[in-house]
Amino acid sequence: MSNIKHKIIFQPHNREILVEDGENLIRAAMEAGVHINASCGGEGVCGKCRIILEHGEVEGGTEKLSIEDKAKGYRLACKSKVKSNIVVRIPVESNVDASVLNIATSPRHTAKIKEFKLESIKDQGLLIPPVVKRYLELPAPTAQDNLADVTRLLNFLKIKHDEHRLVVDLDVIRQIPDILREGDFKVTATIIRPVRKDGKNQITLIEPGDTTNRNFAIAMDIGTTTIYGEVLDLNTGEVLSSYGDFNGQISYGEDVISRIIFAEKNGGLEILQKKVVETINHVLDRIIKKATVNGSPIRKDEVSTITLAGNSTMTQLLLGINPRYIRRAPYVPASILYPPFKASEIDLDLGRHTIALLYPGVSSYVGGDIVAGVMGSGLYQSDKLTLFMDIGTNAEIVIGNKDWMACTACSAGPAFEGGGITFGMRASKGAIEDFSIDPITFEPMIMTKGNVRPKGICGSGLINIVALLFEHGVINNRGKFNQDLKTDRIRQKDGIWEYVLVWQGATQIDRDITISEPDIDNLIRAKGAMYSGAMTLLEEVGMHINDIEQIILAGGFGSYVDLEKAMVIGLLPEIAPEKVIYLGNGSLLGAKMSSYTNLFRRNVGEVIKMMTNFELAETPSYMDHYVSALFLPHTELNYFPRLKARMEARKSKIIQEIAVD
Amino acid sequence: MSNIKHKIIFQPHNREILVEDGENLIRAAMEAGVHINASCGGEGVCGKCRIILEHGEVEGGTEKLSIEDKAKGYRLACKSKVKSNIVVRIPVESNVDASVLNIATSPRHTAKIKEFKLESIKDQGLLIPPVVKRYLELPAPTAQDNLADVTRLLNFLKIKHDEHRLVVDLDVIRQIPDILREGDFKVTATIIRPVRKDGKNQITLIEPGDTTNRNFAIAMDIGTTTIYGEVLDLNTGEVLSSYGDFNGQISYGEDVISRIIFAEKNGGLEILQKKVVETINHVLDRIIKKATVNGSPIRKDEVSTITLAGNSTMTQLLLGINPRYIRRAPYVPASILYPPFKASEIDLDLGRHTIALLYPGVSSYVGGDIVAGVMGSGLYQSDKLTLFMDIGTNAEIVIGNKDWMACTACSAGPAFEGGGITFGMRASKGAIEDFSIDPITFEPMIMTKGNVRPKGICGSGLINIVALLFEHGVINNRGKFNQDLKTDRIRQKDGIWEYVLVWQGATQIDRDITISEPDIDNLIRAKGAMYSGAMTLLEEVGMHINDIEQIILAGGFGSYVDLEKAMVIGLLPEIAPEKVIYLGNGSLLGAKMSSYTNLFRRNVGEVIKMMTNFELAETPSYMDHYVSALFLPHTELNYFPRLKARMEARKSKIIQEIAVD
Repeated sequence: MSNIKHKIIFQPHNREILVEDGENLIRAAMEAGVHINASCGGEGVCGKCRIILEHGEVEGGTEKLSIEDKAKGYRLACKSKVKSNIVVRIPVESNVDASVLNIATSPRHTAKIKEFKLESIKDQGLLIPPVVKRYLELPAPTAQDNLADVTRLLNFLKIKHDEHRLVVDLDVIRQIPDILREGDFKVTATIIRPVRKDGKNQITLIEPGDTTNRNFAIAMDIGTTTIYGEVLDLNTGEVLSSYGDFNGQISYGEDVISRIIFAEKNGGLEILQKKVVETINHVLDRIIKKATVNGSPIRKDEVSTITLAGNSTMTQLLLGINPRYIRRAPYVPASILYPPFKASEIDLDLGRHTIALLYPGVSSYVGGDIVAGVMGSGLYQSDKLTLFMDIGTNAEIVIGNKDWMACTACSAGPAFEGGGITFGMRASKGAIEDFSIDPITFEPMIMTKGNVRPKGICGSGLINIVALLFEHGVINNRGKFNQDLKTDRIRQKDGIWEYVLVWQGATQIDRDITISEPDIDNLIRAKGAMYSGAMTLLEEVGMHINDIEQIILAGGFGSYVDLEKAMVIGLLPEIAPEKVIYLGNGSLLGAKMSSYTNLFRRNVGEVIKMMTNFELAETPSYMDHYVSALFLPHTELNYFPRLKARMEARKSKIIQEIAVD
Repeated sequence: MSNIKHKIIFQPHNREILVEDGENLIRAAMEAGVHINASCGGEGVCGKCRIILEHGEVEGGTEKLSIEDKAKGYRLACKSKVKSNIVVRIPVESNVDASVLNIATSPRHTAKIKEFKLESIKDQGLLIPPVVKRYLELPAPTAQDNLADVTRLLNFLKIKHDEHRLVVDLDVIRQIPDILREGDFKVTATIIRPVRKDGKNQITLIEPGDTTNRNFAIAMDIGTTTIYGEVLDLNTGEVLSSYGDFNGQISYGEDVISRIIFAEKNGGLEILQKKVVETINHVLDRIIKKATVNGSPIRKDEVSTITLAGNSTMTQLLLGINPRYIRRAPYVPASILYPPFKASEIDLDLGRHTIALLYPGVSSYVGGDIVAGVMGSGLYQSDKLTLFMDIGTNAEIVIGNKDWMACTACSAGPAFEGGGITFGMRASKGAIEDFSIDPITFEPMIMTKGNVRPKGICGSGLINIVALLFEHGVINNRGKFNQDLKTDRIRQKDGIWEYVLVWQGATQIDRDITISEPDIDNLIRAKGAMYSGAMTLLEEVGMHINDIEQIILAGGFGSYVDLEKAMVIGLLPEIAPEKVIYLGNGSLLGAKMSSYTNLFRRNVGEVIKMMTNFELAETPSYMDHYVSALFLPHTELNYFPRLKARMEARKSKIIQEIAVD
């Protein structure tokens, strides 16, 4: 992507925003908190998002406009790409009421994004991977010095590189006679470091010549839905390539529970293991083909380690371990720590010598992906009382700092992934993800992923919709529609109250896309489960939700969540947005960090001991907290002081405006 | 075999000997050093070995005798089995001259046989195998205690059995969820001890219920020619079964060098590896099927460890490691130490969890079999300066005591195994193994393996023959025949001087069986190589061959050697026979000891460091010693004072007798 930034000034609000070259104008307006009527998701069919370009240039946006309108500077915002600094005026027809501008005072992306900072790792001298390559020029054996090949290698690793406590893989012994002589006794040994200092250094490979400049690792996140991999250059620390794909297990169940059920069937475990390995191998193939160093490609057998992080079920399925007891009370995983093993043992398509390192977990539902996130985010070193959340069907919560951590998981249900919602869908093309509403007319502004006509609502869209419906009084704090509002978008159908987000004609699905009270109810239960999980954890450690100093949001979904909206519905505790960190794929980040620095692998053993696991089902206060959280945002509005203030301000303003009218 | 012993008194010599019930009378005479004319190997066809039974009973021996002779008590010694205490008189016709009695004053089996003493190991508290089974009754998980299965196991191994530093095999993690529940949380864990105390204890198996009373190990000797295995009960220490078979690699070469040459051919290494694994699996199958505990059979997957000892070439071939550099100067093996590995990795037909432990070696030609012998014989703990020899095509020599050891190997050539000898053969049925000669008539007395007509001469027979030919002046100290002796058995044929051991009619091969000067020369070179190897080693450490306080003979061949004869030809230094220990299969013994007590595995690392290897080819003095040793017994007869005395005594006696005549 280009790094050129353009400034947009929205009039009459005089609101400025910096955007990337080519940014879609309606998305920029959404970002700036400027409401423009729009209902086709950005495909340009509804023609409602007309703006006037007062200065500068945009690309496109002139389709379906009359010559006169074009001449006057009208553009369709949803089809316009920003190509220079511009001034845009929102006409009355698009900008029904300026009061809407106050709804979201902060664009969500003021929140920090946790970025991986290679330089910082290097500066701290922490680029010390769990695998090292050592080059040696050995003296050739003579009659006076005819030590065994392995002995010669070990002696010189000791003398030249101060390497001790070495053990040698059988495969290395098998290859050493020929490789030493093929390389004229100039060879490179690959050494895997132990997790604990008192462990052994394992020689896994011997190569002729000096290959120390070619030492690669793979970091991989084994998600229930997606699998992401990265190729890392362990000499420079650079990420050479990355790629993600859907976990091939998806056809056997969307979530971990349905996978476990399938695994319990005859041959099911073997199928699921095979499927995930197929996906991993596909990802490996892609990332390795994409990776080059100084223009030369890398080979699979140049990969020294692969570090994998996944939840407990994904981990057990990957290793072919029956996960049935994860699903059954008292929810016991097979193990939390796994020994290093040869990647080839589970048919990963890497070198015969490549060592697989699996992230340890804490419990059946707080797995290696969460531990990797805790490691990758630095939570375990933080002074601040931090709430770490990985939001999904199963939401994991960690609360703590460098001194202690408590963790739990709650079953949020599939609402955050669009499940159980009438028009719910995954966050793919056509999913409504952004939404705003005119507080007077209750007309919506929506944007879809990919700027195509809407097909449905994804999880982040759902949160945004419910938050705004609530803040504008379209629904009350129990998620019920205000049946008195004057808009044909609120209606009762088959006895169920709903709000029409998109009329049939502007959709891809030939039906009105709506959000109903049962949909809202599902979301409330999902967010309630998470919030009350966090509250319960805090109470168990004698703290309160208002003590939280920092929030870390992990997971793909977490990165899409609009913080303000998430706080409006009570999914997240109310906190200044700058105290929220988007972690993105914490699992992948942790796997990457462990690939770079072995200290991480040493620390992680301590970290999982620190992480006290709570089973919410076994914590009596959880149900009380849950019931209290089944409101928007919560029974106790005082936990959300800023929302409370805004709602009161808006109420009085509307009253004033109505009085003015 | 029966334990009944019978006393035989041989007259007129008044020599007594105790023998087993059923012992062959001619073998007993041989044992007692009593000469009886005999040339058919004990088949009873020559009829020369007539004796008179003066008292007691024998079974058989009356064939081909006249009724009168039978009545007079005549018997054919070679067909008579001793069934009671007897008195036997050697008639003049069989006992040509009593002076022969003085030739071998000590029956060879006064030498000690090293026996494995289980009770002594137990008494010293050393029955602490490298594998232990621990039974646990775990509390079932509850909502308040839902630790991971592996964590539960480890915690209770720590609490109940004080087990620490545990690592868990991936396979155990795979099985633990089901096995814990199948066994109602009553389980047995199999733990492999590390070699070094700072290593990890590896959990390799988990079984439902209490299986601690079923813990088995295999000890195995991987010989170039034969493979022997034993099943050991690690609870009682008992050897449950044993079996040996020819190494299936034999068809690809008789000795290590020819195997290496074959391994260098395309696909050769794979074939040899497959062949030895086939033989091992055959032996495993036999010994496991034969083994029972309290009448119940054992299963392959109840075997916790297999400890294998073999020479460096056998070890490398077993693991599929190219042995080509073992054969080429400077004779470098791939490794001397091998990590423990799963037996299934090399397709051994045992449990998936069974751990294979390989004996370490010292050099290309002093391998794991020798180290196992050094361990098994206790040499490494002995105060006495000991000469340890494993005699074969490649003869290995270790000299030292508990404080230091020097070792080497010399290529003796195949003479000891019957190779390069005109009528040489392996020690199988029909091989001449025992021999004596009448000092006046030079008529032989011979015994064959299996008491059948002779087919040829085995290695131990060759030594006996040459020793007696030399002591009786039939050959001189350079191995050349005394052409002046009055016997038609000494003759020149095709320009080569030889002695006829058996006339054509008494053989199985329809030819005279002879021993020729070139045959004798081959033996002298073989024994010279060994003796000078020992001398050279001693000189290198500043000692002399007369300092030797003890000899340990390892290997099948070593057990057959007649000590006195071996000293007569100068194969062994002259030493009192009671200072010689027959070790038998030292390789198997060492493997067994290591299976019983892990201290052995710990000590062996120190022992191989202690064992300084010398390459004779690189030791300048070796050639001088070798040339000096190409005499019977040696250029320096003073090294053999007793032989010297005997020879002088005999010479004067014969002179006296001749004078009397």
